[in-house]
Amino acid sequence: MTRENKRVQKNGKLRVMALGGLGEIGKNITVFEYGDDIVVIDVGMGFPDEDMLGIDLVIPDISYLVKNADKIRGILITHGHEDHIGAVPYLLKEINVPIYGTRLSLGIIEGKLDEIKPACEPDLYTVEAGDTVSLGVFKAEFIHVNHSIADACAIALKTPVGTVFHSGDFKLDVSPIDGFMMDLTRIGEIGRGGVELLLCESTNASRPGYTPSERTVGSSLERIFGQYEDKRLIIATFSSNVHRVQQIINASARHGRRVAVLGRSMVNVIGAAAELGYIDLPDGVLIDVSEIKRFKPEELTLITTGSQGEPMSALYRIAFSEHDRVKLTPNDVVVLSSSAIPGNEKLVGKIVNALIKNGVKVVNDSVEDVHVSGHACAEEIKLLMALLKPKYFMPIHGEERHLYANKENAEFMGIPSNRIFISEIGRVLEIDRKGARFNGTVPAGRVLVDGAGIGDIGSVVLRDRKILAEEGLVVVVATVDTVSGELISGPDIISRGFVYVKESEALVENARRVAEGALMRALSRRSQDRVQLKAFIREELSRFIYKETKRRPMILPIIMDT
Amino acid sequence: MTRENKRVQKNGKLRVMALGGLGEIGKNITVFEYGDDIVVIDVGMGFPDEDMLGIDLVIPDISYLVKNADKIRGILITHGHEDHIGAVPYLLKEINVPIYGTRLSLGIIEGKLDEIKPACEPDLYTVEAGDTVSLGVFKAEFIHVNHSIADACAIALKTPVGTVFHSGDFKLDVSPIDGFMMDLTRIGEIGRGGVELLLCESTNASRPGYTPSERTVGSSLERIFGQYEDKRLIIATFSSNVHRVQQIINASARHGRRVAVLGRSMVNVIGAAAELGYIDLPDGVLIDVSEIKRFKPEELTLITTGSQGEPMSALYRIAFSEHDRVKLTPNDVVVLSSSAIPGNEKLVGKIVNALIKNGVKVVNDSVEDVHVSGHACAEEIKLLMALLKPKYFMPIHGEERHLYANKENAEFMGIPSNRIFISEIGRVLEIDRKGARFNGTVPAGRVLVDGAGIGDIGSVVLRDRKILAEEGLVVVVATVDTVSGELISGPDIISRGFVYVKESEALVENARRVAEGALMRALSRRSQDRVQLKAFIREELSRFIYKETKRRPMILPIIMDT
Repeated sequence: MTRENKRVQKNGKLRVMALGGLGEIGKNITVFEYGDDIVVIDVGMGFPDEDMLGIDLVIPDISYLVKNADKIRGILITHGHEDHIGAVPYLLKEINVPIYGTRLSLGIIEGKLDEIKPACEPDLYTVEAGDTVSLGVFKAEFIHVNHSIADACAIALKTPVGTVFHSGDFKLDVSPIDGFMMDLTRIGEIGRGGVELLLCESTNASRPGYTPSERTVGSSLERIFGQYEDKRLIIATFSSNVHRVQQIINASARHGRRVAVLGRSMVNVIGAAAELGYIDLPDGVLIDVSEIKRFKPEELTLITTGSQGEPMSALYRIAFSEHDRVKLTPNDVVVLSSSAIPGNEKLVGKIVNALIKNGVKVVNDSVEDVHVSGHACAEEIKLLMALLKPKYFMPIHGEERHLYANKENAEFMGIPSNRIFISEIGRVLEIDRKGARFNGTVPAGRVLVDGAGIGDIGSVVLRDRKILAEEGLVVVVATVDTVSGELISGPDIISRGFVYVKESEALVENARRVAEGALMRALSRRSQDRVQLKAFIREELSRFIYKETKRRPMILPIIMDT
Repeated sequence: MTRENKRVQKNGKLRVMALGGLGEIGKNITVFEYGDDIVVIDVGMGFPDEDMLGIDLVIPDISYLVKNADKIRGILITHGHEDHIGAVPYLLKEINVPIYGTRLSLGIIEGKLDEIKPACEPDLYTVEAGDTVSLGVFKAEFIHVNHSIADACAIALKTPVGTVFHSGDFKLDVSPIDGFMMDLTRIGEIGRGGVELLLCESTNASRPGYTPSERTVGSSLERIFGQYEDKRLIIATFSSNVHRVQQIINASARHGRRVAVLGRSMVNVIGAAAELGYIDLPDGVLIDVSEIKRFKPEELTLITTGSQGEPMSALYRIAFSEHDRVKLTPNDVVVLSSSAIPGNEKLVGKIVNALIKNGVKVVNDSVEDVHVSGHACAEEIKLLMALLKPKYFMPIHGEERHLYANKENAEFMGIPSNRIFISEIGRVLEIDRKGARFNGTVPAGRVLVDGAGIGDIGSVVLRDRKILAEEGLVVVVATVDTVSGELISGPDIISRGFVYVKESEALVENARRVAEGALMRALSRRSQDRVQLKAFIREELSRFIYKETKRRPMILPIIMDT
């Protein structure tokens, strides 16, 4: 290290910035910059709000990373959920940077890279909890935490200004299915060494108490398997929750049932998890869905996707009698081992109604404890704070209400308000020897992905889609002789999503006459200004249609000049 | 009464059919027909599902009533909620039938008839709980029940085949705000006289226990008023819940606060309710919103609409700093005295985030008991069954999961399964001396209302809106000489909601070339078949666009013939 570098190390500034995950759900990504070195924790994606019509997914604006690609020493992945890894393929399409993560996280990322090809062969480095990676001036230690996916980590980042602790997504499970409790001891040691800044997830920050152990779901499953021993059990859950899947498999084995797996992502994840050793499959328990007709209903458990009511998921197709292998009978019990993510309540309700209409018994978390959260409640967050005793605190991962609830937790634990930083996407928290403060912003925001298009949908396109969606479209088209200004043909009216034309013939014909009148009047002025002409037609027609229908469809005048 | 009529009375059939409110939320309407007489209980409206793009509201198909208008002896209204009265104006536009209801219900209907004019002067007859109305062969007795709106009734309908009891929406409140408990005594008497059929609402049928008294909200409000005595209180609730509003006004008066009312529907309802005597306004408590600047924050309570997160409601505008009279400060506490109706969770969350970002404290039903349901839980429903001892049972008002949960309640109370009828919209339950059975259907379904248009939006229009919403629109337009078949101008490409054209110029130009190629090839065949020509262009262009973008916009080829 040169003398110059040493000076930077001593007097430099650590810049901490989230490019996503603040004031929103999903697309978690946090950037740490010191001098010429950058490390990034997680590169997640999000899902569209209801006003983003037609958008498939939302990824963070990574232009800051692309611009500073040569500084990036590595991407650190805390765990394999979409909101933490989903945008990795989009990042790797732009720049080639090494990725560090545990085995399961990287396994899931590799699956995604088969679908969206990176620019060049990616450098994926497998780590284990306890490992430390050197990345420029940084040293990153992966620390085991409990969560609703296996192999999840928090990260302790040693920086020239002190240790920064990033919680990842976590909960404390004193009786986890895989036997590995969150590494409180190591966290305590890190705390003893001094922590400058804690970044802590906020999902359940407003919920008092502790999140129950994953094992409590096992007890509920045991009761359900006992109560419905003469029925076929269909259990829906998140495919990535391998511990939940393990418990369902174990209960099935204990009760002499075979297990068939339904749904593409469920089949993929169980396959990958079994291969990597995260799921223990007792011999002969797993059968292919094509074999289920060889067994009696009470000898079967079906594990399926669709716990969020996703249209076209396996459970959806089963509920609406569209599944080619599984037909419902009153001999079926469906267990929803999940809770509806906000916004999905109606979709889930739709499936439940369809199941019940088929005479099927439905068990969900309002009836039995068939689901627990994967996120820490307030007491667990406070425990983390008590062990780490951070000087500064920045709540991450959540909407405003979650971030502010986590601020209250920190205040309760004695962190002064002026050392708690509620940041925004792209805002820079600067830490140096003198203290911590917000200072400036970097480019950040959201990029909408629709089909193969990344970022080519902007607010104008979305506004148009909203008008088209709610009011429909009226096209007025006419051909005009450029020289004489005479009307050659039209105007014709074509509508889509507006009214059912057959039943509204008179309305459409009257609209055509209004458009014709407007067009003739405009043409008689012999103006060549087509923009003005179109605006005139649009205005006249819009007024007429609103008067008749109280609707404001998009009106698209098209003038063809010959 | 002629001998013929008597024979009908003795040997006739009662036909019971719901035209809405089964397998869905909202638009409750139940029809009772015997010989030449029809009575209808409630004519409600519903709200659109998320796949009904641009639809404002949903009303029942009333063609059966229109066809049998001369048989209808009266419409009976149980209470003044939209899902029970909302479609009355649409019915009165078609036919003139007398309406019977309590004072508040009719008051709210009159307000609606000012906006949507009926065909002729409507006959509105005010009744009180305890009154009986003769309607052809029927006699209808209105019976007081508790609910989240004042003046709510159940209806006991004496028919030639026995008494039918319709619960309306109800709960049992042993300590109601207006002092009038549900009339259990009269219900018990009716039960003693024998009940043939009970129709019972199912909203909370799957919830165990009893719904808490409205008065428990008063205790919570009292605590909140005490805890935040130095802050301005902004309390959002449903405008129709006059008892809730009364409790907020009472607490304000006790704590020396003035009350200002925000939001059009809240102002209207409080005005109407005060005029009709349903709200007691202590002198000088109510002030106009223009006066609030004369008072200190801690001397004010604001009652507002927007508890469901409705965009452009008063609370929404306050939260997003768009309200011209009310600006938020950290001296504000917002109380959401409500719970989110399924599907509204994200909208409510959005407002909460905005409030918290403004430094405002938010109190909702996850923190304090600031809301209770207006619907009976399982034990209350069982109590009603115990008093009435009906021979037959038909759950109404709810999605399938609610109807089937209510069936379980009835079975628990000893009603045999074969006497419980889970019906569907339009299905006819027939009751005569020999028993009860389903027999046939009548026309029924839903009619979509968009702006001034009633029923002119069908599935084709909705499908088009969905495509336009999710993928956008590409118009290809060209002018062709009819005689020579030569291309005179175009093709031009115009897109909306597809891609941001400025950034996708090359794509649009390439699409134009593909369309041109297709058009030229088709024209060279000299076919006059324009349908075929358009289909060919659509197909070629669709393939090209999907290959380039993985999107399938609506493609609208327009050929102008000259």
